Amino acid sequence: MDKEEKYVDEIADQDDNFSKWYNQIVRKAELADYAPVRGCMIIRPYGYAIWENLQSHLDARFKETGVVNAYFPLLIPRSFLEKEAEHVEGFAPELAWVTRGGGEELEEPLAIRPTSETIIGHSYARWVQSYRDLPLLINQWNNVMRWEKRTTLFLRTAEFLWQEGHTAHRTMEEAEERTRMMLEVYRAFVEEDAAMPVIAGRKTENEKFAGAVRTYSIEALMGDGKALQAGTSHNLGQNFAKGFDIQFLDADGQRKYCSTTSWGMSTRMIGGIIMVHGDSSGLILPPRLAPYQTVVVPIWRKEADKSTVLAQVERIEKLLKRKVRLKVDLSENTPGWKFNEWEMRGVPVRMEIGPRDVQNNSVVLVRRDNRAKEVVPVDALETRLPELLEEVQKALFQRALEFREKNTHYTDSYEEFKRIIAEERGFVRVKWAEDSAAEQAIKEETKATIRVIPFDQPAGGVQGKCIYTGKPATCEAIFARSY
Amino acid sequence: MDKEEKYVDEIADQDDNFSKWYNQIVRKAELADYAPVRGCMIIRPYGYAIWENLQSHLDARFKETGVVNAYFPLLIPRSFLEKEAEHVEGFAPELAWVTRGGGEELEEPLAIRPTSETIIGHSYARWVQSYRDLPLLINQWNNVMRWEKRTTLFLRTAEFLWQEGHTAHRTMEEAEERTRMMLEVYRAFVEEDAAMPVIAGRKTENEKFAGAVRTYSIEALMGDGKALQAGTSHNLGQNFAKGFDIQFLDADGQRKYCSTTSWGMSTRMIGGIIMVHGDSSGLILPPRLAPYQTVVVPIWRKEADKSTVLAQVERIEKLLKRKVRLKVDLSENTPGWKFNEWEMRGVPVRMEIGPRDVQNNSVVLVRRDNRAKEVVPVDALETRLPELLEEVQKALFQRALEFREKNTHYTDSYEEFKRIIAEERGFVRVKWAEDSAAEQAIKEETKATIRVIPFDQPAGGVQGKCIYTGKPATCEAIFARSY
Repeated sequence: MDKEEKYVDEIADQDDNFSKWYNQIVRKAELADYAPVRGCMIIRPYGYAIWENLQSHLDARFKETGVVNAYFPLLIPRSFLEKEAEHVEGFAPELAWVTRGGGEELEEPLAIRPTSETIIGHSYARWVQSYRDLPLLINQWNNVMRWEKRTTLFLRTAEFLWQEGHTAHRTMEEAEERTRMMLEVYRAFVEEDAAMPVIAGRKTENEKFAGAVRTYSIEALMGDGKALQAGTSHNLGQNFAKGFDIQFLDADGQRKYCSTTSWGMSTRMIGGIIMVHGDSSGLILPPRLAPYQTVVVPIWRKEADKSTVLAQVERIEKLLKRKVRLKVDLSENTPGWKFNEWEMRGVPVRMEIGPRDVQNNSVVLVRRDNRAKEVVPVDALETRLPELLEEVQKALFQRALEFREKNTHYTDSYEEFKRIIAEERGFVRVKWAEDSAAEQAIKEETKATIRVIPFDQPAGGVQGKCIYTGKPATCEAIFARSY
Repeated sequence: MDKEEKYVDEIADQDDNFSKWYNQIVRKAELADYAPVRGCMIIRPYGYAIWENLQSHLDARFKETGVVNAYFPLLIPRSFLEKEAEHVEGFAPELAWVTRGGGEELEEPLAIRPTSETIIGHSYARWVQSYRDLPLLINQWNNVMRWEKRTTLFLRTAEFLWQEGHTAHRTMEEAEERTRMMLEVYRAFVEEDAAMPVIAGRKTENEKFAGAVRTYSIEALMGDGKALQAGTSHNLGQNFAKGFDIQFLDADGQRKYCSTTSWGMSTRMIGGIIMVHGDSSGLILPPRLAPYQTVVVPIWRKEADKSTVLAQVERIEKLLKRKVRLKVDLSENTPGWKFNEWEMRGVPVRMEIGPRDVQNNSVVLVRRDNRAKEVVPVDALETRLPELLEEVQKALFQRALEFREKNTHYTDSYEEFKRIIAEERGFVRVKWAEDSAAEQAIKEETKATIRVIPFDQPAGGVQGKCIYTGKPATCEAIFARSY
């Protein structure tokens, strides 16, 4: 067995055992590690570089809509959490509590933030006086903690990194508009930058955020047919404004409560990227978020060729420095080993440079996603490589979209529904008469939940009966088992 | 009393009450607020934007030296902290402890990280096998917590943001070289980007980091004559490597301990920027870190001029968009109010555009630091404004340097030393025979400590006697009272 085969063999087959494949690839690609603290994660440099790229793309999109960043405290007094009844009920079981500080027992225990609506609500109440102070459009990039029982790297850990945006508005309409606007920012980011097709829509009452009037989300389909919630945006109505007394003097001289929103995306997205794009050789990273967009592998057999090849590599590195995130692998490993290593780590394009390539003043480019090779003259690299990376970006999206379409099922029969959920996985799109009890019953019977009521509904309304209750359907809903 | 005077009057005089001035300016400029949790801080958008600019400049400088970013957990098991004796002794009084999570008492309490040498040491021990894995050069941007008794916004708060770099090396020499290299990165950043002159050197045994072999720091002189430590870099020798068993197989087949370093800079730097550059009208921000480098104030008296002026403002905004961080103040306030507001908030250059300026196709630029005015043709703005911003950047550094030189005292008499510390403030540079007991005695008698033993020592060695013990001096030391 040669080295290449051995390397591939070490990774579990995706079809065989997807979660084993996932865990292996996270560790082997050095994306993350379990921490010595239960359920916590260490994000290693290669994984963190994906997060940095995600941050810079998403942050720029936020700022284009007028959002600014700030930082609020890590610790939240117990009394704050109790001011919004549904909120505390939803989060209480997952809280971590600081009870001692500076050598003394604290009078009031402080929770490590599971999310920051309450501590931010307290500030907003002080900052907002008049309608002229509105809207407040603030985001923070931070760590949060939810004491989860079962954890998986990136997907569900006790501590994770995210951003949480919090806005305050003069009217309900404006809050609703902002809630939808930020969902659209997420959709555009995830589809364009992470190359991950999503379905945008509304969450049901059962699945909405604890304390929200309405929750919207984008849902993606993973390689194993399970759904992943990739981002959520909540219209909080006046719930938190009333809990924290966020009032303003309106132009008509009346004191009124603000309407607020919150919206978040987390390191969980990295798990999504792995599961949507990866294959049995390992990761495939979308070029816009990949730490290295191209890996350069110099090749020579005869020692006499070495300096010629390396000189060419250096020239090309200079040429592309400001255009492409390049990794030149000068390690002592064999070219074959490097090919496998960087395939496994998902670098979108490999550039091979051997003595004959130097002679021809060209390089060989190999795509990670479909292994297509092309020979490109060095003079054309500056335009061709960025173009090729965009082609890969689009192809990844297209492939994931086709996978999702192939794995989206339509049925009017609950028996068939149960069979699909049990045997086929994927999204199941059905007619639905909104009913929380029916949704709960289906969850208990099949483990599937309504991921989202898509914005995209049949023109002219839904005809026919709810798949479960037989009542006249009011919408189409997407069910799936989920992460 | 007209509005302008009133506005200025609201801020305390710097010479009268520097700390009152500082606290007022932090709040009035909307940089930060106290949180409802004791000793914690809310960094407001205007303050956080300074932090974002600091991050992006400093992070780029780190990466140029081969450093990559990662993320390690917030919580540290008690047993980890106890593995390095000096370390736990130094930090124990300031720790916050999580004792409950997910509804249960924890078996082992977890500290919120006051710094991450221990949790990172645990990972490094697993990641490093061979000398080929070295050096490890990792940084993280994160929050830390130290339960301080007395707090001041930015300067000393229970929770603060910082970066902490942690490296592991094959030899002591390499660790020492990296420790000094990162101090030099800090020096260059602080002097070039924050326009703040610093003195680089070594800390004494009394003042070094808990667990370090050697601590280096850069020290700046604040507007009130007190010193501020702006960044530190620690050579940890093999102390943490032994505590956490960070070993590697060297090329000679021997297992050896790594040598490690750590280095950090925090949101405290924002406090330093305020105190070094600000004046009695408020903040003065160095252009490279200022959220807005230039504020545009449109001016008109007759309603008929409004649209002409605003059209010109829009043209100029487009022209400068990618070159300068611009704030156009279109609020309903008067021009005079805007002048004062943005002076108080420290915007380095103000651009005034009135009807006559539109006619002449020029603008008026006014520097915040010295109020110098110049008329600049619109066609020249793209080159002149960035140039002017660099002139302001350099002038701020120069002014702070002159202030420091004026407030650096030299004496061989301990009586005179005591008088200077009590009456004059500033740095006092004296001959010193390194002696921890003498240092402690001086601290008790005068509250002054050795800020740093500067790298810059007299050529040919120090002649003469230690100012306190009378023993032959071995170096020159800089004493000051400090933040």
